[in-house]
Amino acid sequence: MKRATVVVSELDLSAPEAEQFPLPDASERISIGGVWPEIDGGRYPAKATVGDLVDIECDILSDGHDLIRAQVLTFGPGGPQGGRETPLVPLGNDRWRARIRLSESGDHRFTIEAWRNPFATWVEQAEARAAAGQDLAVELLVGRQLIVEAAEQSETGEDRAAFRNMLAAFDQAQSDGGTRAVLALVTAQEARALFERAGPRSHFTRYERALTIRAERRAASFSAWYELTPRSQSGDATRHGTFADVIDRLPYVRDMGFDVLYLTPIHPIGSTNRKGRNNSLKAEPGDPGSPYAIGSADGGHDAIHAELGTPAEFRALVAAARAHGLELALDFAVQCSLDHPWIKEHPEWFDWRPDGSIRFAENPPKKYEDIVNVHFYGQSFPGLWFALRDVVLHWVREGVRIFRVDNPHTKPFPFWEWLIRTVQGDHPDVIFLSEAFTRPKIMRHLAKIGFTQSYSYFTWRNTKLELTDYITELTKGPSVAYMRPNFFVNTPDINPFYLQTGGRAAHRVRLALAATLGGNYGVYSGFELCEAEPLPGKEEYNNSEKYELKAWDWDRPGHIREDVRFLNRLRRSSPALQTFQNTKFYNAWNDQILYYGKATEDLAEFLLIAVNLDPHNPQECDFEVPMWEFGLPDHATIEVEDVASGVHFTWTGKVQHMRLDPETMPYVVWRLRPLGRSA
Amino acid sequence: MKRATVVVSELDLSAPEAEQFPLPDASERISIGGVWPEIDGGRYPAKATVGDLVDIECDILSDGHDLIRAQVLTFGPGGPQGGRETPLVPLGNDRWRARIRLSESGDHRFTIEAWRNPFATWVEQAEARAAAGQDLAVELLVGRQLIVEAAEQSETGEDRAAFRNMLAAFDQAQSDGGTRAVLALVTAQEARALFERAGPRSHFTRYERALTIRAERRAASFSAWYELTPRSQSGDATRHGTFADVIDRLPYVRDMGFDVLYLTPIHPIGSTNRKGRNNSLKAEPGDPGSPYAIGSADGGHDAIHAELGTPAEFRALVAAARAHGLELALDFAVQCSLDHPWIKEHPEWFDWRPDGSIRFAENPPKKYEDIVNVHFYGQSFPGLWFALRDVVLHWVREGVRIFRVDNPHTKPFPFWEWLIRTVQGDHPDVIFLSEAFTRPKIMRHLAKIGFTQSYSYFTWRNTKLELTDYITELTKGPSVAYMRPNFFVNTPDINPFYLQTGGRAAHRVRLALAATLGGNYGVYSGFELCEAEPLPGKEEYNNSEKYELKAWDWDRPGHIREDVRFLNRLRRSSPALQTFQNTKFYNAWNDQILYYGKATEDLAEFLLIAVNLDPHNPQECDFEVPMWEFGLPDHATIEVEDVASGVHFTWTGKVQHMRLDPETMPYVVWRLRPLGRSA
Repeated sequence: MKRATVVVSELDLSAPEAEQFPLPDASERISIGGVWPEIDGGRYPAKATVGDLVDIECDILSDGHDLIRAQVLTFGPGGPQGGRETPLVPLGNDRWRARIRLSESGDHRFTIEAWRNPFATWVEQAEARAAAGQDLAVELLVGRQLIVEAAEQSETGEDRAAFRNMLAAFDQAQSDGGTRAVLALVTAQEARALFERAGPRSHFTRYERALTIRAERRAASFSAWYELTPRSQSGDATRHGTFADVIDRLPYVRDMGFDVLYLTPIHPIGSTNRKGRNNSLKAEPGDPGSPYAIGSADGGHDAIHAELGTPAEFRALVAAARAHGLELALDFAVQCSLDHPWIKEHPEWFDWRPDGSIRFAENPPKKYEDIVNVHFYGQSFPGLWFALRDVVLHWVREGVRIFRVDNPHTKPFPFWEWLIRTVQGDHPDVIFLSEAFTRPKIMRHLAKIGFTQSYSYFTWRNTKLELTDYITELTKGPSVAYMRPNFFVNTPDINPFYLQTGGRAAHRVRLALAATLGGNYGVYSGFELCEAEPLPGKEEYNNSEKYELKAWDWDRPGHIREDVRFLNRLRRSSPALQTFQNTKFYNAWNDQILYYGKATEDLAEFLLIAVNLDPHNPQECDFEVPMWEFGLPDHATIEVEDVASGVHFTWTGKVQHMRLDPETMPYVVWRLRPLGRSA
Repeated sequence: MKRATVVVSELDLSAPEAEQFPLPDASERISIGGVWPEIDGGRYPAKATVGDLVDIECDILSDGHDLIRAQVLTFGPGGPQGGRETPLVPLGNDRWRARIRLSESGDHRFTIEAWRNPFATWVEQAEARAAAGQDLAVELLVGRQLIVEAAEQSETGEDRAAFRNMLAAFDQAQSDGGTRAVLALVTAQEARALFERAGPRSHFTRYERALTIRAERRAASFSAWYELTPRSQSGDATRHGTFADVIDRLPYVRDMGFDVLYLTPIHPIGSTNRKGRNNSLKAEPGDPGSPYAIGSADGGHDAIHAELGTPAEFRALVAAARAHGLELALDFAVQCSLDHPWIKEHPEWFDWRPDGSIRFAENPPKKYEDIVNVHFYGQSFPGLWFALRDVVLHWVREGVRIFRVDNPHTKPFPFWEWLIRTVQGDHPDVIFLSEAFTRPKIMRHLAKIGFTQSYSYFTWRNTKLELTDYITELTKGPSVAYMRPNFFVNTPDINPFYLQTGGRAAHRVRLALAATLGGNYGVYSGFELCEAEPLPGKEEYNNSEKYELKAWDWDRPGHIREDVRFLNRLRRSSPALQTFQNTKFYNAWNDQILYYGKATEDLAEFLLIAVNLDPHNPQECDFEVPMWEFGLPDHATIEVEDVASGVHFTWTGKVQHMRLDPETMPYVVWRLRPLGRSA
């Protein structure tokens, strides 16, 4: 708490003296900048998915007209050995691009190199002079000298021999065929390639920083989550659910096509100040309490609530889920109940008030009477940090590789950065989802410091303008380099007004949006039953599972399991839906109809999706078929498949008409195929 | 030319090992980022004008709800002593701002500091608890303890006494008036201020970089240039003009209100391969040659063409210009004529071909037969660099403080960065204008590496959309931190088609745009006479002064000297026109009428400017009077002055109508004043 003294010597705060301003070295003749991806000067890693193509771009500037060559130099997680060179290609306007594929998970490093190629420059100028009919006699001497120098500067005998052969060929051509023959020789692919590979590199420059791209497994960027509360899976509101009950639910979840089964906390629940139904301050006898009030005499964050099962039964659930193609995700919520063992074992990790009482979690004047927060500095550091890391590693050892992290924005950023880096250092397949519904820069910062996925504002983006703006920001803005949103349609804490008031159609609308717009998306169980009964006036569920046991009729009328199944299967079979960044909005002349395309880069798959955002009324409009994406004229004919029905038809002409009735089908997915292209 | 070996150890290209990932220190709890102005991670300085307010902004992020305090720490060109602290104020959305004024020219350094204020946090929470009617007994003990700790940690006896006094007052208030009295004490300004100034600063953080802002004199950002060719100022095309002739022209230039008189090169002109009229390859006897073919037996870049005058006469011109309120600017063109003394003295600075001939300047297949270029590396380094620096310093000693630099983009960036920094280190008042008409990133880069001003694309931005986009980019885009465009309406090399075809009205239009939109702007003499005779089909002047002596009738009919005088005087008297960044475009429903406002930040001066971009036809339209800028309703009445005529009137209602006739007045400047505000 001591006020830090200003020690200006730590930073160079003085302006350099003019006489000290050094003469630069030659390498600065080429300037490399505007590198993508580079986050905060390289302070944070960019993110990528193993196996995906990653675009690396930069500006390369120099004076004059000499030809520039450039490459990306990449190093895998193994270290600085064996860097890989990928040529950068000019895009125009001094922008360059290389595409690389990271085939291993972990932190890859890259930097950029550029140089002038004097021979290529000479060839280009010789061609221009020849085309203008200028005499080349002296210029040929210049070119010949470049070959001589290349031979002299060769790094291997093989290269030297190649340049000497080229010199001999040059002289032969000149004596046999004169200028024209020499030009044919030096502009031939072989000569160019030799110089590109082994020729002198003038004013060689390397970018001043090495940058990091963190490659993570596919599920980091593409996953469909299903969240449930294990204790409410018995089918009987009077019987506490068990892991075995969850195992019985696996076929149901799997049949809907989800990838991840996410469980709310499974740890012992405190009894002191236990919350009652609907978050009431007083629990009735038998009330189970909030699973987020973690810890009792039975144990803390690495223990299991006894009524759910044993560690062995948990392991059985992990295995069964895996057998059903599902991965289990656990909730990592750092707060403790008042009965958590840590309070006695490590009182120094908690805030105590001057009267000797422990400080509840609070955001004054709001209080959370059933939980207390740890603090992360002072006497907690680093003991608590290691303890929390060990909690995560415990569940990693139990077979869990995905953690949904509760409210990370109320714990210090350095803790998360350290925790994630430390865990992923040994287990690069571990995924952390940030449950931070807070201010935008905080949410982005959590993604920067390492969270694999992030909850987002999608849950509250309902109108066409909101959705268009938000998706554009997420897919085209700078955060695309490091933030992977997970589009949850609802959560135990969030029962959006749109769902409360829009009925079954609203649920289908939000599902279709989340499943097609989000690389990652999630639903909290009950959503597929269109359960949306609110606490009056609030965006919360009435009689929430957070505070009581529930029983659900999973076949109750009006469910939308068919939609879930259709959309999840479509996601799995459609490469176009497996990239988050490829959404393009097209014109549909109705503000209630959101209309967009998702296509693979080679257009092998091209999906058009239209969603009627109005859950109460049929909406119709003319819309533009993006014929231009295929290079087709506006009057072209294109083949279309209605993916849900499998019906095939054609559209002729760019402007077509659609009508979407929320009662029958509030969304549609079309697959486009130019005539004559095989399916 | 040796190919550089990849030495990966120079950069840390290996990913850090997980076990090496260190525990962070407490200071990282607060993250400072998104700093403005920061250019390429601090690699280049931002620019500011001495005396102007500079906004410094950043994002400050931390976990939880504790109150953050932050400040900018600035150090003047003198060095790291006596940093100045300026509080940062939160703008919302985690953005903070401070405004500083740099009162000295040179490189200022700044960084940002942030910390948590535990006492302010406690006060805020105590107030919230009290408002919710909660019992504060224990919380008051917490607050009291904060005062005790503050006293213990005080850095001076004075502070310690202040905190002890506060503690006594706290105890007294509690015993006299209880909780309410204590709250009154701790929320009082005195207590808050004491803690802000001298209280503990928790999790104190300093931004990881110190950044530079280069403060330059007013003429760097606000100046009106008049360019002329000295040898054509005799009034007689058969008599070579002299510096004395230029002195005779000073009243004329001064009467038009210009600030800078810029002369094309004044150095000896080569005779070998001298260009004839209209850039012909063969000069006729008596042809003076291009002043850009610098150097003869009489001397090079530090010599004066004998027909213009002597060094003493040049100094007389400098002094006379100053007496007329004009500053002289010289042309700095690095190329040499074939007769330049350096070619004999320093053959190693030039490119020689294998047959022993010197290489002309060229961009194959184009050749510039009357000049040769120096090269900057190899044997030129650093001798040539020092020689060129000495040329600039020579003219600085002769009283010149402004240099227009010819084609800087064909010389290495490191040379310019070094040259400018070196010259400005001793002479911070020296201004360099970059004459680079090239690709946008190159132009921006030249500004980054130090050029004070930059030629721009304004010369070719003619339509409403072009102008709106370009001005928005220049004033709102990131380059505003370092690039100051100079809006030249024409140059000896550029006779824009718009001026060629638009006649007198076109000249008035472009003048009005340049003078009101550009902080810096310039005209090349003849423009005010509406001289626009082209080389057929080209954007060049016929019979250009670059290759022959000319005589001008400065009073010839149709000149627009009145416009120049009006606009330049308006610029000098209107603070609203002296800031480049403050242009705001408003609605005028006619694509030929550009309509914008320039106002001081306090709205003390508010100018509306409308320009009819169509030089051939009257244009009219409804337009919006921005009543909202003054907080006035749409139906309000506002006082207006037509600045050119001095006529006063009022507008009632937001929508008004205008008609601009290019024959009479293609532009209008209105000064707005809310009713009742004195002039």
